[in-house]
Amino acid sequence: MKTYFYCSIFLIISAIFQAPAQESMMNEALRSPEVDETGRVTFRLKARDVQQVKVTGDWMPREGYGRATAALEKGGDGIWTYTTESLPSELYWYHFIVDGVRTIDPSNAHMIRDVASVFNIFIVPGDKGDLYSVQNVPHGTVTKRWYDSPGLEKKRRMTIYLPPGYETSDQEYPVLYLLHGAGGDEEAWSDLGRATQILDNLIASGKADPMIVIMPNGNAQDEAAPGKASGSLVQPSFMRPNMMAGDYISSFGDIISFIESNYRAKADKEYRAVAGLSMGGFHSLHISRYHPNTFEYIGLFSPAITPRNNAEAPVFQNMDETLKTQMENGYALYWIGIGREDFLYDEVTAYRNRLDALNMPYEYVETGGGHVWTLWREYLTTFAQQLFK
Amino acid sequence: MKTYFYCSIFLIISAIFQAPAQESMMNEALRSPEVDETGRVTFRLKARDVQQVKVTGDWMPREGYGRATAALEKGGDGIWTYTTESLPSELYWYHFIVDGVRTIDPSNAHMIRDVASVFNIFIVPGDKGDLYSVQNVPHGTVTKRWYDSPGLEKKRRMTIYLPPGYETSDQEYPVLYLLHGAGGDEEAWSDLGRATQILDNLIASGKADPMIVIMPNGNAQDEAAPGKASGSLVQPSFMRPNMMAGDYISSFGDIISFIESNYRAKADKEYRAVAGLSMGGFHSLHISRYHPNTFEYIGLFSPAITPRNNAEAPVFQNMDETLKTQMENGYALYWIGIGREDFLYDEVTAYRNRLDALNMPYEYVETGGGHVWTLWREYLTTFAQQLFK
Repeated sequence: MKTYFYCSIFLIISAIFQAPAQESMMNEALRSPEVDETGRVTFRLKARDVQQVKVTGDWMPREGYGRATAALEKGGDGIWTYTTESLPSELYWYHFIVDGVRTIDPSNAHMIRDVASVFNIFIVPGDKGDLYSVQNVPHGTVTKRWYDSPGLEKKRRMTIYLPPGYETSDQEYPVLYLLHGAGGDEEAWSDLGRATQILDNLIASGKADPMIVIMPNGNAQDEAAPGKASGSLVQPSFMRPNMMAGDYISSFGDIISFIESNYRAKADKEYRAVAGLSMGGFHSLHISRYHPNTFEYIGLFSPAITPRNNAEAPVFQNMDETLKTQMENGYALYWIGIGREDFLYDEVTAYRNRLDALNMPYEYVETGGGHVWTLWREYLTTFAQQLFK
Repeated sequence: MKTYFYCSIFLIISAIFQAPAQESMMNEALRSPEVDETGRVTFRLKARDVQQVKVTGDWMPREGYGRATAALEKGGDGIWTYTTESLPSELYWYHFIVDGVRTIDPSNAHMIRDVASVFNIFIVPGDKGDLYSVQNVPHGTVTKRWYDSPGLEKKRRMTIYLPPGYETSDQEYPVLYLLHGAGGDEEAWSDLGRATQILDNLIASGKADPMIVIMPNGNAQDEAAPGKASGSLVQPSFMRPNMMAGDYISSFGDIISFIESNYRAKADKEYRAVAGLSMGGFHSLHISRYHPNTFEYIGLFSPAITPRNNAEAPVFQNMDETLKTQMENGYALYWIGIGREDFLYDEVTAYRNRLDALNMPYEYVETGGGHVWTLWREYLTTFAQQLFK
């Protein structure tokens, strides 16, 4: 039996050498990254014939437009190694730079795409790391579904999170519309934002109410994320045509009515929230103002405020007037969060002054940090716990 | 207005330099790969300080355990380039090798993971390329959902494809259970296999009937794909514990009854198909034999036949007897496909002899090629068109 078993394993291994997965076997021995119990992280790369291997990631200090790098040291076995200091619990991105060429870590299959770039990720366990990880709790259902947008004259793709138990209950649920930033798409919040894990874990611990979360595509001219829309595998880009134009804002009702007629969503202002990061914060601001009696909860995460395009469009006129109407109609929470190092900090300060002048109440959270996903995951965590109470 | 606009663009661009997406901007200028109208593909990589850049992918001839490589040539601008001959229409994988280190193409965000390795992909348009691409046709809905498996004593994750129109009709649909190979998981068929695109496109052209496609996780000891199960971001591996053991086969009814009680699935043998590749072909063979009056359509794509583990388990006994029962109960199609270069070719030949000895009818398709996804996408395309007619 044993002989037969090992013989079979050999056959199976032979199989893999005919498939692209051939490197899987070769890489399996090299463990990178390895997180020890004190949060120190070791990176390893096998590279006999190169001069220099560096690693960079979001635990490194800022340097110019990017992050500082750390050099890996070459061992006699051709394996380069670097170990960090203890890192706080968090989800981190990183990549290698081999003789000046950006590479991923071939030993780590866990990656995320941010706009056009792909990064490896790792998680240091603890408070945030555990919140962003899949835990042994009831899991929501995550769906990619196409809907019709008469306002944008196309079929478009969205990501839908249904809370655990949705399918087996006959309950109606509140809805959070969660909007991505420029360069993002309907996959950004679920992938980079770990929204699925955050919601599963907050709901399981009773810190957030069960809710439907809708993550639409906020690039008005696109059907879907790059490679998920009709046509070729276009390279993602940050500058989408007609970015932040008004028609996404004015047509947002298409999304709401699709959800409320296709899911057991509570179709009342009291049970609707809208929040987003950067361009998605801009969208949340203007959508909630333009549809001024629609959302009880508004979340602006590191938001852009002023239009970058089509500023003369009707949707962008009468700011103060529509904000005032929104205020008079009432809302439970108008939440603004921004990092002190964010390039949008001054724009947000000016907007707060405008709200103050209107006597329009809001909750303001200022944190360290720049224009980064670490903050947006944190803001979502804070915001989600205040919804629908 | 113009000044304001460009000023705003500058602000936005500043934003990105604080985010991990900083490389997006830098890489945008370099187009790689570029497919011309004759199917010639040009790869480009910027690398000033390296000695050698090579590319390998599945259009290259086999060499040893892998594929041959082609050298990129360095231009004066530090940009390395290589252009292929005209390639037939297909979805291809590739990666670079920079001074002996496996890297991805930083200019191409489109990737797939095969077991533990990540590959770039590109599509050469035409018959197969178009079939594997998102087209402007009605799209099905793709869901990741957790279900309870009493037989495996855990909650587990599956991918569910609902055909276009499912949500707005009150029709019942037939179901194809589509099973992955060793090292794969519930994401393999939708990602590597392009099952979503293939089904959308075949259904749109009337070549396949609208059907639900269920892509479960066939690794009995796992909850879900690596990184999608409880716990840390484990590295995927080819050799799962207890691989191909009998309990997945004997408990397959858990999946069928979950689907038939949660979706508008036609709950009759006549409307059930099971098919899979490699280990998934093995599963399809044994599941359809062990549940001998359950499936009208059986598809074995490059299948393994003999158990690699737990061969003494009850589920693997009485092969001939159970096959005979399955034959006597009747089925519309027992389809076997394999490539002549597949390491499982002899095993499949022996199985065909066994079926011949039992006078058990089957359809047999022998193609060129080895144990590769290009064939499995092709087999799915062929098989899906014969279902539920």
